[in-house]
Amino acid sequence: MTRFVIIGGSDAGISAALRARELDAGCDISLIVADRFPNFSICGIPYFLSGEVARADDLAHRKAADIEAQGIRLLLEHRATRIEPDARLVEVQGPDGGLAQLPYDKLLLGTGAVSIRPRLPGADLPGVFALRWIGDTLKLAAYLEERRPRQALIIGGGYIGMEMAEALIHRGLAVTVVEAMPSVMTTLDRDLGERVGAELTRHGVEVLAGTRIEAIEPDGNALAVHGSGGLQRRVDLVLTVIGARAETALGAAAGVHTGLADAFKVSRRMETNRPDIYAAGDCVETWHRVTGTHAYLPLGTTSHKQGRIAGENAVGGHREFQGSVGTQSVRLFDLVAARTGLHDADARAAELTPLSVDSEHWDHKVYYPGAKRMLIRVTGEADTGRLLGAQIIGAYGTEVSKRVDIFAAALHQGMQVEDLNDLDLSYTPPLSSPWDPVQMAAQAWVQRWRCQRSAPSAFGP
Amino acid sequence: MTRFVIIGGSDAGISAALRARELDAGCDISLIVADRFPNFSICGIPYFLSGEVARADDLAHRKAADIEAQGIRLLLEHRATRIEPDARLVEVQGPDGGLAQLPYDKLLLGTGAVSIRPRLPGADLPGVFALRWIGDTLKLAAYLEERRPRQALIIGGGYIGMEMAEALIHRGLAVTVVEAMPSVMTTLDRDLGERVGAELTRHGVEVLAGTRIEAIEPDGNALAVHGSGGLQRRVDLVLTVIGARAETALGAAAGVHTGLADAFKVSRRMETNRPDIYAAGDCVETWHRVTGTHAYLPLGTTSHKQGRIAGENAVGGHREFQGSVGTQSVRLFDLVAARTGLHDADARAAELTPLSVDSEHWDHKVYYPGAKRMLIRVTGEADTGRLLGAQIIGAYGTEVSKRVDIFAAALHQGMQVEDLNDLDLSYTPPLSSPWDPVQMAAQAWVQRWRCQRSAPSAFGP
Repeated sequence: MTRFVIIGGSDAGISAALRARELDAGCDISLIVADRFPNFSICGIPYFLSGEVARADDLAHRKAADIEAQGIRLLLEHRATRIEPDARLVEVQGPDGGLAQLPYDKLLLGTGAVSIRPRLPGADLPGVFALRWIGDTLKLAAYLEERRPRQALIIGGGYIGMEMAEALIHRGLAVTVVEAMPSVMTTLDRDLGERVGAELTRHGVEVLAGTRIEAIEPDGNALAVHGSGGLQRRVDLVLTVIGARAETALGAAAGVHTGLADAFKVSRRMETNRPDIYAAGDCVETWHRVTGTHAYLPLGTTSHKQGRIAGENAVGGHREFQGSVGTQSVRLFDLVAARTGLHDADARAAELTPLSVDSEHWDHKVYYPGAKRMLIRVTGEADTGRLLGAQIIGAYGTEVSKRVDIFAAALHQGMQVEDLNDLDLSYTPPLSSPWDPVQMAAQAWVQRWRCQRSAPSAFGP
Repeated sequence: MTRFVIIGGSDAGISAALRARELDAGCDISLIVADRFPNFSICGIPYFLSGEVARADDLAHRKAADIEAQGIRLLLEHRATRIEPDARLVEVQGPDGGLAQLPYDKLLLGTGAVSIRPRLPGADLPGVFALRWIGDTLKLAAYLEERRPRQALIIGGGYIGMEMAEALIHRGLAVTVVEAMPSVMTTLDRDLGERVGAELTRHGVEVLAGTRIEAIEPDGNALAVHGSGGLQRRVDLVLTVIGARAETALGAAAGVHTGLADAFKVSRRMETNRPDIYAAGDCVETWHRVTGTHAYLPLGTTSHKQGRIAGENAVGGHREFQGSVGTQSVRLFDLVAARTGLHDADARAAELTPLSVDSEHWDHKVYYPGAKRMLIRVTGEADTGRLLGAQIIGAYGTEVSKRVDIFAAALHQGMQVEDLNDLDLSYTPPLSSPWDPVQMAAQAWVQRWRCQRSAPSAFGP
């Protein structure tokens, strides 16, 4: 009977536990969870803080009882304090402070990530919050209820910063988002990030890109925030959401190697360098299928996949992680922005020669009421015609996110841009066109590509 | 300079013309169009007849002027009356009745399909309409305006029949749909077709499956319709939409071979047996990528693809049609039903051993407001685990149609059901889950499949 011990009760750990149980009814599974909230949806935090989700408990993908019903031992409010790889033991501290030794045959590190805290004076003041785990969330929720802040400043214009801006607007606060990079939403190309920023501006958010916060000071009952370009704001709440880094201390102390971005190095079977120790989720570097190299991409989707694979392999399987293609989507007010693969800067960083072509399309036949325009930017490899990535910005309700998934599926298979036209995609006038926008965008790319090529033949690849 | 003559100005013909022009600025392209409405969206007819689209002209994918601006000669209201393959001539009759000879180097037959008229007494009475081309549409529109019928009976419960039922309900008519097969919407499995029927019933349509119409008789100012099981209805309007058959008379007279369903036989380069004569669209049999055999699938999406390939090859290209996977979607009131690939009956007809597994999923995280359930039926090959097809029924607005396209892309690539879990699909709580419903449905399939297998190993393919 395999004793499978999992450290971390978030996406990777839970997925591993469920997959191991599915494949091996007899294995003994213990899940060490630092808090009382296993399988908590980090991505749902903004919707709880906005008030759209009534109770924090509703953010759990699964309840503790559901997990235990699968025959998985949940050690809630337990902390793994030490790993002894040679003895195959994990030292665990329970809620009462007592230590115990937990033997394992297979161990999974699913220790996740921690928020990067900005190094600036005043970052530890009351009223300054980070946001990653449920603990942070409940603290901020209590502050919002009790102190009723009216002015908020968010440091960081990535997904969570932008979603939190919407959430706080939804609660009636005045919100400023400050991003050090030239545009918010840097997972998109700069001009597309600016479009997303404009959607927030349209809804009353003050969006300041290219601005660096320099200090936070107490100012009576409030906080004075100082930044580059003479920025001065007096606010009741500062939220710092500038990214995350892998939490690896426990594993590193046990000799588990780290690599890119100081995240655990893992094989595509999610094995670390130490025998019988797997790692998955936000604490590992991720194999990128398009570049064929590693990247640090702490995303719930990837954590679920990696956890599932680690769980399968821990009970005797041989499955390999097939890689991320860098797919992400976000809804902000009435807009959806989604991306997959590489944009120009990514591609150049990977020493590829990208060509990106924009085109705009109606989400469905324009004669049918309610059609809306979406912008699709297709990035392909100029040398070969291979699809490298796509970005789509369009209205909420126009199937933007699953359209980017068609690109993601094509990327997964290493398809040529031109070959997207071979896909038999669904069409009915209220929902698409005989050529789906994805295909019209591919055609626009191929047309531009052919014009730019000096090859004697007019015929593409 | 290639003289490229195209007979038929609908999806296949227009796509071929545009593609040829794109690749060969010098080629001489003539498009023979029987009516004054080139590039007319057949799929849009119900939305014009419902009143949602104000003018029939708006149903054109492109206006005549746009097509001519591409340097394509439009011969509107011209009929090709004869082809002389040896002399490479098409005889054309103009609107004044005069005949002319049109020489070609390459010829495309894009003659489309015609409605199958039911063989029953009274099928030619005034008040009985078929529906395929703009001519039929305008006649029916005029009847609706002038006669203001209050009761309609639709013979045929396929896509168009069901969409027309909604359209006539939208205009305030009482509507009965009569389908001879045991359920409406036979492109879906029977029980799913019944769900679609129930959506129409919920909106006031009388849906009668398993019922055969036997005769139509004049009855004062109205029509008396008699059917099996004692059916008697007195209506002001009968619409017959029981399918279409390839229009091949012109080509057959010139020695072009027909095959399945009496549609033109073509190579994957869209070549017929006659030199320099191509055929594409609703007049040809279609290569099905999943079964590896031919099928008759007259769909706009397929016509566009085949036309584009024929156009490319006509000007010197060598592209092959990559096949249909049988993707179709329909929106009816608040419901979207979509399918791709094979369902059980299709698979058994193709001598495969299907396993179909249903699962229901929220379209997005249930904690975020507005989540709705969708039913996904995944069909895979029991012997191999290969994906064979999928059917999805869900609410309008829940990205059902582009979710079926993820299955379609996977089918195109011949993926295993299990491998859907490797796809890096987009997630944000208002739009999906960390495992997209497509992947949760794949997992449900794999779980059932593993249980049913007698293999000693628990590990899938």
